[in-house]
Amino acid sequence: MKKVVLACDLGGTNLRMAAVDADGAILHRTKRDTPKSDRADEVVRTLVESARECTDAVAATAEIIALAAAVPATVNVGKGVLMKAPNLPSLDGFRFVAAVQSELGIRTIIENDATSAALGEAWLGASKGFDNSIMVTLGTGVGGGIIINGQPLRGPDGTAGEIGHICVEPFGAPCGCGARGCVEQYSSATAVVRLTRELESQYVKSELQNRSRLTSLDVFEAGKNGDELALEVFRQMGFYLGIALADLVNVLNPEIIVIGGGAAAGWELFVEYVRDQIRERAFREPAIRAEVVRAVLGDDAGILGAARLAHGLV
Amino acid sequence: MKKVVLACDLGGTNLRMAAVDADGAILHRTKRDTPKSDRADEVVRTLVESARECTDAVAATAEIIALAAAVPATVNVGKGVLMKAPNLPSLDGFRFVAAVQSELGIRTIIENDATSAALGEAWLGASKGFDNSIMVTLGTGVGGGIIINGQPLRGPDGTAGEIGHICVEPFGAPCGCGARGCVEQYSSATAVVRLTRELESQYVKSELQNRSRLTSLDVFEAGKNGDELALEVFRQMGFYLGIALADLVNVLNPEIIVIGGGAAAGWELFVEYVRDQIRERAFREPAIRAEVVRAVLGDDAGILGAARLAHGLV
Repeated sequence: MKKVVLACDLGGTNLRMAAVDADGAILHRTKRDTPKSDRADEVVRTLVESARECTDAVAATAEIIALAAAVPATVNVGKGVLMKAPNLPSLDGFRFVAAVQSELGIRTIIENDATSAALGEAWLGASKGFDNSIMVTLGTGVGGGIIINGQPLRGPDGTAGEIGHICVEPFGAPCGCGARGCVEQYSSATAVVRLTRELESQYVKSELQNRSRLTSLDVFEAGKNGDELALEVFRQMGFYLGIALADLVNVLNPEIIVIGGGAAAGWELFVEYVRDQIRERAFREPAIRAEVVRAVLGDDAGILGAARLAHGLV
Repeated sequence: MKKVVLACDLGGTNLRMAAVDADGAILHRTKRDTPKSDRADEVVRTLVESARECTDAVAATAEIIALAAAVPATVNVGKGVLMKAPNLPSLDGFRFVAAVQSELGIRTIIENDATSAALGEAWLGASKGFDNSIMVTLGTGVGGGIIINGQPLRGPDGTAGEIGHICVEPFGAPCGCGARGCVEQYSSATAVVRLTRELESQYVKSELQNRSRLTSLDVFEAGKNGDELALEVFRQMGFYLGIALADLVNVLNPEIIVIGGGAAAGWELFVEYVRDQIRERAFREPAIRAEVVRAVLGDDAGILGAARLAHGLV
């Protein structure tokens, strides 16, 4: 029997689960709504249903040896406790591993979702073959995962890698975290929309004027058409992201920086500004070393990182 | 015979050497001027003289098993090559370990000086007993050493830990590194003097007005006397240092941050501003976790870190 693991990406919206073999091949996958209730046991129930579906689908040829879940939370990996989940507060402090193991009877692991994505890209994606990588996700916020000498950096509280809250403007825009001027306020998908709104009065000819609904993808589409407002937004977005990444190049000396998430769609409009800031601000050798590349695994990065952990491959 | 190592702190001004036992006791020490010539072999000659003096001094009771040197440079530890030494350019690219080993015939190691200091403080100083620590030195520049899970963070180029070049003002003061607004421009001993000069016209009653020579210690002494200019300088110095350290608390989740170097003398005037910024800007759990303490080993931190490496204790 082939040894297979269950890998879960537990998001605020969807709970995705896959049966994954030791080469990273996805043999079966499911997607359910993440329960909106305030009860942790409903999340566990949905997860268990998904796990059973995946198990049944591969049962004829595979033995399920473990489950790993990537969660949008700080995590105590050793104790299997989910510490703090801003988008799933019912899980704050929840003994996740104990609850899942008692239902399914298989070895269970949890990991932070950004760290899982970093492990996934380093296994089978853009940072494959590199031992020192940084993964940045540009979504609603700016997430991060750091891998040093092949191992995920978690820190004693499981909070390491909060790249999105590097300060790039000491008196800048207030951030949801309570600080000011975090890079998340300039380089997330949310920030692309906010910057567009803030600057639109200066670009009266922009096609983005007075749109009732606006997404970072709309801004990207306008930029591809040469819209000056959109180009300026992505210039600022890349400038500030580059400052934060230059900090990390100086502090961590990574071999590769992988950028993913929704706002990475604007890649061609911002990446040169990112690279410029790294070149201008970081020390020469580590700046030359640090490749800046786009993520390739999309939504599967977290699942594949979790699968890698569950297979004991990291 | 007791097993003893030679530990060297090769600075831009002094070359210090000590014979150190496996408990960190310094059995003999020497101090010579660092040769100012542009020839690497003169540095090696002075180092070898110091090593022979220390060896002779302890020869009756000790066996010298290795030598380690803390150098003000980026270092390829594995190859024993000193990569780039801004203050000792004659050593750029020098095969340091090979040169010293061929003279002395003992196993030789090099390490970056800030990383050595971090290892020293974590062995016998302020961060003893912690596996995840950051050492910051406030001197001519701002240096840094990072220890993660008990191991020094070097990175593939040996340049990791350049904490002094975290950006705290994107359009701020130009830095010697080529960037702008590095924390080194706000929180080093040099910066304390520069900030005092910049602000003195706003503080006509300050005792620091029109001093022909001014050091960071002068500013500290004035601050202790209640001088408003000095207090404002240390407020800004602590504010910006706190921003850089809050970044590191979010990214690395350290247990303890050790601050040393000449400008740390102003401790009581700036440390609360540092702690305020960490509290205001970093995530709650890692901010509570990260103690900010003063270095205790002074000039011996680098020597003791080198000795720890030479004894194979890390």
